[in-house]
Amino acid sequence: MKAVGIIVEYNPFHNGHLHHAEQARAESGADLVIAVMSGQFLQRGEPAFADKWARTQMALDAGIDLVIELPYVYATAQASDFAKGGIALLEAIGCSSFCFGSEQGAIAPFLNSRQLLTEHAAEYQYLIHEAVQTGISYPKALNAAYKALTADREGFADLTQPNNILGFHYLEAAQRLGSSMEPLTIQRIGANYHDSIEAGLPIASATGIREAFFKGDSVEQLSAYMPETSIATLKNSENDYGTFGSWEGFYPLLRFTVLRDGPEQLKQYAEVTEGIENLIYQSAKTADNFEAFIALVKSKRFTRTRIQRMMTHIFTGFTWQELHSFAGPEYIRLLGMSSTGRLYLNHIKKNITLPLVSRAADLNGPMGKLDIHATAMYLQGLGSTDMKKEFTTPPIYRG
Amino acid sequence: MKAVGIIVEYNPFHNGHLHHAEQARAESGADLVIAVMSGQFLQRGEPAFADKWARTQMALDAGIDLVIELPYVYATAQASDFAKGGIALLEAIGCSSFCFGSEQGAIAPFLNSRQLLTEHAAEYQYLIHEAVQTGISYPKALNAAYKALTADREGFADLTQPNNILGFHYLEAAQRLGSSMEPLTIQRIGANYHDSIEAGLPIASATGIREAFFKGDSVEQLSAYMPETSIATLKNSENDYGTFGSWEGFYPLLRFTVLRDGPEQLKQYAEVTEGIENLIYQSAKTADNFEAFIALVKSKRFTRTRIQRMMTHIFTGFTWQELHSFAGPEYIRLLGMSSTGRLYLNHIKKNITLPLVSRAADLNGPMGKLDIHATAMYLQGLGSTDMKKEFTTPPIYRG
Repeated sequence: MKAVGIIVEYNPFHNGHLHHAEQARAESGADLVIAVMSGQFLQRGEPAFADKWARTQMALDAGIDLVIELPYVYATAQASDFAKGGIALLEAIGCSSFCFGSEQGAIAPFLNSRQLLTEHAAEYQYLIHEAVQTGISYPKALNAAYKALTADREGFADLTQPNNILGFHYLEAAQRLGSSMEPLTIQRIGANYHDSIEAGLPIASATGIREAFFKGDSVEQLSAYMPETSIATLKNSENDYGTFGSWEGFYPLLRFTVLRDGPEQLKQYAEVTEGIENLIYQSAKTADNFEAFIALVKSKRFTRTRIQRMMTHIFTGFTWQELHSFAGPEYIRLLGMSSTGRLYLNHIKKNITLPLVSRAADLNGPMGKLDIHATAMYLQGLGSTDMKKEFTTPPIYRG
Repeated sequence: MKAVGIIVEYNPFHNGHLHHAEQARAESGADLVIAVMSGQFLQRGEPAFADKWARTQMALDAGIDLVIELPYVYATAQASDFAKGGIALLEAIGCSSFCFGSEQGAIAPFLNSRQLLTEHAAEYQYLIHEAVQTGISYPKALNAAYKALTADREGFADLTQPNNILGFHYLEAAQRLGSSMEPLTIQRIGANYHDSIEAGLPIASATGIREAFFKGDSVEQLSAYMPETSIATLKNSENDYGTFGSWEGFYPLLRFTVLRDGPEQLKQYAEVTEGIENLIYQSAKTADNFEAFIALVKSKRFTRTRIQRMMTHIFTGFTWQELHSFAGPEYIRLLGMSSTGRLYLNHIKKNITLPLVSRAADLNGPMGKLDIHATAMYLQGLGSTDMKKEFTTPPIYRG
């Protein structure tokens, strides 16, 4: 059996994701699609809109065959580490290819770019260093360096586009890992008129969908933009928790934590670059809501996403020390499977290099305990008292 | 001018407190009554029912002339340190006597007891040590040792009574400080029929009063048990915050903090004796409310009060290291004054050994910053966003 891997967040699942999964299957000719999915906190440093079980359910209902959890340490990391964790898990579970959505829509420019940067590594590093010195954010410095390097050349990926950047990190991670997975990309369909018409699928942005649910609008109208099954699952999720995950909802706990810890403690958390701790502390004193807080903290140097990742780590109490203590994924945690997925697991079980974990109780190492802890913190943010959910929810099966 | 000092919490102010203040004035023949009052957290390890400004207002309305804040580090400490902080402040502000309520109602037995324990210090320590070895709580061990020591003697204070114990600590603190203040005591009137009739003042327990306010009962009926001014102040307080301070209300933040920190971190907080951290952590996982939590954690060795003090320190992030870093009160923070109080301050200003502080902005040392921090945490517990209250509220004046 041949598997294609995708790296996803499904926050929440919509037609764009459906298109990605279907195209990945078609392009790769694979028998099944395996998704590595972020857990309770996401790469942009946000609590997930719906918990990982609801998001797994949406994925299975839409035809994904296996859902594996991307551990907290990778799911909430900068793009390169996010990619490293995702690719390593797809490799470990035996995918023969991986497929990502990109603005580019073709793989050749990525391969060209990767080769160029490998051959001009020293020059590239120097250009990044120079750009950082001007005080711009790291992502912007990468852009500037790349632009300078490709200025007189052609046929390279446009790395100013967010999905192209992430795709490029996937290729880089696969190469560093010595992976034999074939890289594939499909044209990403954005939430705009022409894209949607071409693909025959009306696409709404995930942000728009989340807003519609928060407002309690007649969410049935969203059925043009996402599977009916996803809508039903989100409604169940709202019934369970009475709300959805968001920084605004989590802000009272975050604020208390920032004020309780104070600047000296804040410095120890992952991604909290020395020097910003006082600004974080002072901003929490006056900001009554998360948007007001972010507005006070963000700057040319520190993007919203970067600050949100800091807040995620402050919220969970995840330190620089912990961040630096992990070398790569230590287990494959199964969140859900279809009948095809189950069949696949039976076939390849003996060849998997990492332990396959179905129950949280079997997560004994620090990386796994961190996933359990992240769930505990996430559930507290939702005001949930059901701390046992992490332990009692088995992998979801959809036959 | 002659001042008598009292050490109070006013949680909230009721007729028993009124009686205490009036008797202190009468017994001492003083021109004014000075109260050292706990700030936002109390000696039993609880958030105050009303904030320190409301409690100051109630005290001034009932005739107290000066209200001084007992710093967090003493207000939330075990009885001996609580007494040490309170007595040191009364001494520093020039009181010629101090007066406490006791079940004993006469000072001679206290002086006898103090002399006995001083003369038999080694034997007493040995008896305490022996009693602790049996696994009982420290307060109970003190009782057992004292009982053994006074078994064949007469004329000593009954140190099984809570207010007698506290009074004894006041005497001990005054003696250690070399204070020349005259110790006075008055019979404490409890919330029971005979006591109340004798004193001509109907007394309700502070617990009963708090419950009545929480239930939103017709609180006007409480006017038999507390001054009308106190009722009015508490109503204002409820209008300001929408609630009153209580562990049940603070529990979601406490629970999040306990779960976020985990056992290893919890050990570092003041009064969290090594070995109990796991029980605290595990109990927070399952207990959905504070009463359920306390029921899981308390034991023969660790009383409810002791555990509540641990929770106070966990809530504020106050560590063993901080606890051990203070030698005695470093300032006199003025919360409120009457015209007589103001006159007194003008008279004695030059003789005061500690800095007299009217504005939080002048609290520059670690002890004062801790009081400001405790207020920030307390206000977060009440869901208040008005973090500036601590800085902008001047001492309350009641002419």
